[in-house]
Amino acid sequence: MSSVRQLLSPASVAVIGASSDPKKTAGRPIAYLEKNGYAGRIFPVNPKLTEINGIKCYASISALPEVPEVAIVLLGAERAHLAVKELSDLGVAAAIILASGYSETGEKGLVRQAQLLKAAGKMRLLGPNTIGLVNLTENIVLSASGALEMEHLKAGNIGVVSQSGGILGSLLSRATANGIGLSKLISTSNEVDLELSDFIDHLVDDPSTEVIALYIEAIRHADKFRAAALRAASVGKPLVAFKVGRSPAGAQAAVSHTGALAGSDRMYDALFKHTGVIRAQSFSDLLDISMSLSNQKKLLGKRVAILTSTGGAGTLISDALGVSGFETPPPDDLTAQALRALQTGEEAVLDRNPIDVTLAGLQPDLLRGAINLLLQSPSYDALVIVVGSSSIARPELMAGAIKDCLPLSEKPVLAYISPHAPQAGQLLTSYGVPSFAAAESIAASLLGMFHVQTWRAPVVRPSKLTLVNVSGTGNLNEFESKRLFEQFGLSCTREFVVSDASQAACVAAKMKGPVVLKILSSEVLHKSEVGGVAVGLDPLTVGPRLEQMKLDVQKVTGKPPEQFLVQDMVRGGTEMMMGMYKDPLGTAILLGMGGVAAELLQDTCMRMLPSTGGLSSVEALEMVKELKTWPLLNGYRGKPICDVDALVKALVTFSEMVQSLNEHLLEVEINPLFVLPKGLGVVAGDGIVVLS
Amino acid sequence: MSSVRQLLSPASVAVIGASSDPKKTAGRPIAYLEKNGYAGRIFPVNPKLTEINGIKCYASISALPEVPEVAIVLLGAERAHLAVKELSDLGVAAAIILASGYSETGEKGLVRQAQLLKAAGKMRLLGPNTIGLVNLTENIVLSASGALEMEHLKAGNIGVVSQSGGILGSLLSRATANGIGLSKLISTSNEVDLELSDFIDHLVDDPSTEVIALYIEAIRHADKFRAAALRAASVGKPLVAFKVGRSPAGAQAAVSHTGALAGSDRMYDALFKHTGVIRAQSFSDLLDISMSLSNQKKLLGKRVAILTSTGGAGTLISDALGVSGFETPPPDDLTAQALRALQTGEEAVLDRNPIDVTLAGLQPDLLRGAINLLLQSPSYDALVIVVGSSSIARPELMAGAIKDCLPLSEKPVLAYISPHAPQAGQLLTSYGVPSFAAAESIAASLLGMFHVQTWRAPVVRPSKLTLVNVSGTGNLNEFESKRLFEQFGLSCTREFVVSDASQAACVAAKMKGPVVLKILSSEVLHKSEVGGVAVGLDPLTVGPRLEQMKLDVQKVTGKPPEQFLVQDMVRGGTEMMMGMYKDPLGTAILLGMGGVAAELLQDTCMRMLPSTGGLSSVEALEMVKELKTWPLLNGYRGKPICDVDALVKALVTFSEMVQSLNEHLLEVEINPLFVLPKGLGVVAGDGIVVLS
Repeated sequence: MSSVRQLLSPASVAVIGASSDPKKTAGRPIAYLEKNGYAGRIFPVNPKLTEINGIKCYASISALPEVPEVAIVLLGAERAHLAVKELSDLGVAAAIILASGYSETGEKGLVRQAQLLKAAGKMRLLGPNTIGLVNLTENIVLSASGALEMEHLKAGNIGVVSQSGGILGSLLSRATANGIGLSKLISTSNEVDLELSDFIDHLVDDPSTEVIALYIEAIRHADKFRAAALRAASVGKPLVAFKVGRSPAGAQAAVSHTGALAGSDRMYDALFKHTGVIRAQSFSDLLDISMSLSNQKKLLGKRVAILTSTGGAGTLISDALGVSGFETPPPDDLTAQALRALQTGEEAVLDRNPIDVTLAGLQPDLLRGAINLLLQSPSYDALVIVVGSSSIARPELMAGAIKDCLPLSEKPVLAYISPHAPQAGQLLTSYGVPSFAAAESIAASLLGMFHVQTWRAPVVRPSKLTLVNVSGTGNLNEFESKRLFEQFGLSCTREFVVSDASQAACVAAKMKGPVVLKILSSEVLHKSEVGGVAVGLDPLTVGPRLEQMKLDVQKVTGKPPEQFLVQDMVRGGTEMMMGMYKDPLGTAILLGMGGVAAELLQDTCMRMLPSTGGLSSVEALEMVKELKTWPLLNGYRGKPICDVDALVKALVTFSEMVQSLNEHLLEVEINPLFVLPKGLGVVAGDGIVVLS
Repeated sequence: MSSVRQLLSPASVAVIGASSDPKKTAGRPIAYLEKNGYAGRIFPVNPKLTEINGIKCYASISALPEVPEVAIVLLGAERAHLAVKELSDLGVAAAIILASGYSETGEKGLVRQAQLLKAAGKMRLLGPNTIGLVNLTENIVLSASGALEMEHLKAGNIGVVSQSGGILGSLLSRATANGIGLSKLISTSNEVDLELSDFIDHLVDDPSTEVIALYIEAIRHADKFRAAALRAASVGKPLVAFKVGRSPAGAQAAVSHTGALAGSDRMYDALFKHTGVIRAQSFSDLLDISMSLSNQKKLLGKRVAILTSTGGAGTLISDALGVSGFETPPPDDLTAQALRALQTGEEAVLDRNPIDVTLAGLQPDLLRGAINLLLQSPSYDALVIVVGSSSIARPELMAGAIKDCLPLSEKPVLAYISPHAPQAGQLLTSYGVPSFAAAESIAASLLGMFHVQTWRAPVVRPSKLTLVNVSGTGNLNEFESKRLFEQFGLSCTREFVVSDASQAACVAAKMKGPVVLKILSSEVLHKSEVGGVAVGLDPLTVGPRLEQMKLDVQKVTGKPPEQFLVQDMVRGGTEMMMGMYKDPLGTAILLGMGGVAAELLQDTCMRMLPSTGGLSSVEALEMVKELKTWPLLNGYRGKPICDVDALVKALVTFSEMVQSLNEHLLEVEINPLFVLPKGLGVVAGDGIVVLS
């Protein structure tokens, strides 16, 4: 049996530093174990007590009558490591460390935490600074969370892993209050040993868990996370994650622009997208989306019927769904006709959506009839029912009627509780109709359900490694960067290096057509900002312009440039950019529209590089179309259609180059990349490469 | 006494069509009046009954013993107008019509509604299709809302006007459950007579109301709303509005681009901004923001202290505040030192924010000490306290401690309830500490409080009417449009009308420098899309290019253009656009970055035109700086600093032109407007004018 499994379901538990006062943190674990009917053996350890609530208490770890499978250590940080050492020596499988005062407090704490890990030896650790775990499937509570004071914890099929102990309590109590059933909850907190992905892995194999909800502060082991998340996806267990820390991080000090455009929070987006994780945009969505997915009903399209007996709330739902891209079409003729036949009275308007059955709030039969018709209608993929104020005084009335209709359809049914009527919501949720108090949460949940049906794992392709001799380290200049690109098959502007005016004139004459003159330097990062770029030159003008440029640049940088580039002036193309962003989560490829306006408006998108190979062309095309400025490539307002095929191919090639160069590459960016009219390809106008 | 006042506080009420069964809609009004201890006289009217719960029932309106001040009509749409006529003839001040089946159902209903209004004569009507009103200040309930089944409705200082009856019930029950006190609630629904602004006006004068919450489906009388909202602002009673219908409306059929860029929902934004209304972004924010404002504490800055005893939740708050632009600086040295002195134990880290007082969740004295220190600290403008899971079992413990500290400071104190602990939240809210279950709601509330402190009413300036002879109707061509602009003092490109190649060459020779050639037509809207624009021409090339353009345009439009414009080619400017958008809410001025990329990315902003005069230059500058691409005007990446003063002046002039031309003007747009380097002004490159 794995240590994680033992941790969640131990046959015996030692509680080190247990108190006999259940109001104290150190008194809670035993009180909660007992309250929830733990069937295994409990061994309290406390030299000052002989028994706790009838359970024999031991003076020390060495006095224990047997080796417990798991220990909860309730001692402070100054003594916890001593107990951990003893427990490890005894052969205990895993220990939960509640004490705070470790890495979360600064350097001293970090030292303590290392000491703790060392003391543990082969014994696995949960924590420190954790509130423990709760196994609702088997009623095993190894936690001190005050949320466990609640009655009627509801077992269900949602597993929770939280990097915060307080949040675990918050989720547990909120779920309980809303009739949402959970399977296991684990607070990993400081993650000195066992961490997020260990528990995801376990829950993927746990037959009681169908959905996994994650509260994330930082993913510490991205590769493990990636593997665990992809495994969850492969067995059809959705992962829903809320990640804190969305405020824009300080701009990275970097040579390319990609750093500022990407940012660490967007890397989480890219990682989640890559691994099929549904990102909850608000903390409350985390439970709401998980709850909706736990029913395992399938949302096969975006057409939603809204059934209401109160106009205003129906509008709220339809508004929120519209903003999120759902459709709320009116009923088809047959359905509308059948709805009318259900009802007497002229007031109800049944040929539009929301479908307003004015009296149904008090007439369960009418409600049942309308629900059945809408679920059978070929016009809808899901049904949202608005529960009105009758539910305050009579929560069972509508809830019961809705419940009766569920077995008749595989389509998702969700409820919006318009007044404050928690009982009605709890009832419905426990019947399998996820219930919500906010319209936005319904939209978020339906988006989550739709994601589960439509997300596909990235195609893993054999790594197409191009062997290239990379010489040198540090910043390559523009010329060197482009030659490197060319070795991978990316086309770049034709260009020549010159060092004086006469060479420039000579080269320009050979090149035919207007040329661009640039300084060539691996030090100057933004050439145009120092006056180091001139466009539209010919053999006559390029020489004098070079002399002028020498002076201009010297004025800004303090020394005259020694080399220049004379290159073809690209015309008629659409400017874009490609870049790479690396952080502990992985390596991502960024695509964006070029030009300063697009840069300010941050029209970019990102994809995580798979573990081997580059992006697929399907992914690359998806990226191109994700840009808001995509119409610029596609004939917008009389512009020529651009060579999107070549752009896609270049993006794939760029990603393969990044994969091939791997850790040799610190930064890489092509900016601008000119996308020429259809059939004419793409060409890199400038590039940055920083090698390690 | 005004009819609205009588409606909200009648000395006597007739209930037409009253039922004796309190479970039926028609039975509720009398049951609720009695339950809430109505002190006035009640006159039920129903020919089939002699009494209802001991109150004498009358067979008909004509049989009433006196003229009631107000009547509630519970009859269906087919009979309601008859009762209304009788009541009006009797001299009743106002009637509430609950029946549905009017304008909300389509044409037949619209006819009925007109009939109803006619029947009312001088009597004022609330509804139809309304759920009535609730006056909690005086315990007068004239409503059939099922939400009134709740016990302990809490009177307070928030007035509510809702255009939906169901939403009124939802808000009433949600407020009650959360300990939020309301003054008056009115559901205006179909608004055949009394409407939103009538009640805003009343609540502005109501001494029991300090904050006004609005649920808006559509503002039917924009001028009245504007006046009422500005009056509310002038007496310091904040208006908070939630408006449904945010899904993008279908693009308006219009000659200019402004229509598609503006859209009706953005007009609501502009109107709210103009009148100081705080727009709630979600329905739940409507109550949350109102609750926060009802305490009337002042948020004077954006620095927020977060006090927590549970790490995770503190991070949630700090994250949400960061996303909304608040600062969460660490405590100043003195405060940090004093915090440390409060506490023993090394674990607590008190020199960062969130301020984590690990043990305070169970130690009220410690909590009090920390709260007082943070409220006294000069580093903070507000305090958010995270309430942890101790509040589940002991809701009074922390709530009481927090309450004790309130009198000591004028700074806002808000609470986040991390677990599901509604009792703790209700307690705190009723103590004057607005409590929330979502971090985003705290951010929204603080933004609302900050808005109240910083919003300034638009300066009303004397109308600067320029008398201009506007000739003709319909689309003006580019030349005519620009001459109109020039009459108002807006500078435009120098240009000449020509009709053949030799004229063009001749004109180009006189103009010196490169020219632009365009077709001149009031029919062709997008000249470049038909091949009708060429740039960078000289006296030699302009003639042949004109001949070519004739052929190109003819190929697309079917006929050769008869006139052309030869104009100066503007170089070195930043392209922007200005437009106007009119809808029933008013007239707005739109400013945006020009060029196709910016158009796709919709970088625009809008301001409502005041009732007289144009925009002030303060507003105009604010608009310019609101654009995401504002740095492009301000020296971004080595670009020249643009003539922002001239841009601001042009925007003011443009708005004055719109005001002066008034209803003569159907559409107007300058696109592009070139903003030249500082000192060189702005120049209109192209323009559209449609006159009525």
